[in-house]
Amino acid sequence: MTNDLPLTKDMILDAAEQVLRRYGPDKTSVIDIAKFLQVSHGTLYRHFASKAALREAVTERWLDKSVAEPLEEIAGTAKGSAAEQLLLWLETLIGKKRKYAVDDAEMFVMYGAVTLETGKIITLHIDRLIKQVASIIERGMQTGEFKPGSADAIARAVFQATTKFHHPAHAHEWSSETIDDDFDTVWRLLLSGLK
Amino acid sequence: MTNDLPLTKDMILDAAEQVLRRYGPDKTSVIDIAKFLQVSHGTLYRHFASKAALREAVTERWLDKSVAEPLEEIAGTAKGSAAEQLLLWLETLIGKKRKYAVDDAEMFVMYGAVTLETGKIITLHIDRLIKQVASIIERGMQTGEFKPGSADAIARAVFQATTKFHHPAHAHEWSSETIDDDFDTVWRLLLSGLK
Repeated sequence: MTNDLPLTKDMILDAAEQVLRRYGPDKTSVIDIAKFLQVSHGTLYRHFASKAALREAVTERWLDKSVAEPLEEIAGTAKGSAAEQLLLWLETLIGKKRKYAVDDAEMFVMYGAVTLETGKIITLHIDRLIKQVASIIERGMQTGEFKPGSADAIARAVFQATTKFHHPAHAHEWSSETIDDDFDTVWRLLLSGLK
Repeated sequence: MTNDLPLTKDMILDAAEQVLRRYGPDKTSVIDIAKFLQVSHGTLYRHFASKAALREAVTERWLDKSVAEPLEEIAGTAKGSAAEQLLLWLETLIGKKRKYAVDDAEMFVMYGAVTLETGKIITLHIDRLIKQVASIIERGMQTGEFKPGSADAIARAVFQATTKFHHPAHAHEWSSETIDDDFDTVWRLLLSGLK
């Protein structure tokens, strides 16, 4: 039995996310997702060229909704201390990652696998986050709270210098007793470099 | 046939390293190593309680010889600019990791696996490296090149803020075209925080 409704990208991603969550990224095949949607796998391949492409697209949507969008709100608030805003942004990013690593383990594992492929999607996601950090730093530079410099380059540096605290490859270290102190020490050094 | 020579820790580690390199950490068993040494596996277990313990001990020795000891020399040179010394130390660490990831892939993969277990050995290795960084920063503080502060805490921050460039979980990113620029940007921000 096949379904005659026109397939939208969101319908496919909804189905793929459900199936991937249920069976895990390794055991899910494109055929499983096609069956779930009641379409032929040929139809599905017309939208996504491979299982890897589907997996990436599901991860991208999840990252946008659960990470980039809530952070966008924080980055968009142009008032108060830029240092406090930057700290709130970083702590929110780190808090979300830690939460998802535990509460949304299936998606988190898939996201971890996708980052290993260093594909375009992760690069775009990171660029989006770094742009948010740059807007906070830019404002701090304008108000004189931060030293002048290239906001884009410094934002990239801040993001990369905090890798240990938000990159999924380090998730197994986040339950360490010293992780909060460690972040605090890195933050102080970075802030001292910004001011 | 069994060998009657008394087994030293180094003999066992030499054998274990050879066997692990040949078959890989997953396929090597304690029995393989015992056979190679011509001893019973009971004898081997008297020295190392498990395959994991053997693997950790081999990694520890490798990290000491190929990473910590050469860096110790750089950290021990108490002349010239502390900033230049710190940069040399970091660039040497990063250069060695990148080299081993390619030229000594078997050991590097094992080292990557051992870091995932967050065992005592990796903690000790990192503490040793951070102590070296602290001695450089301490000297920079004494000469007034760096701002005063807790050299130990700042050394820890410098080490962790450069995770992306030396932690084995990021080895797949080290061939990126932007990796050197990325390190340079992080370094500038850290240095600006130190000065």
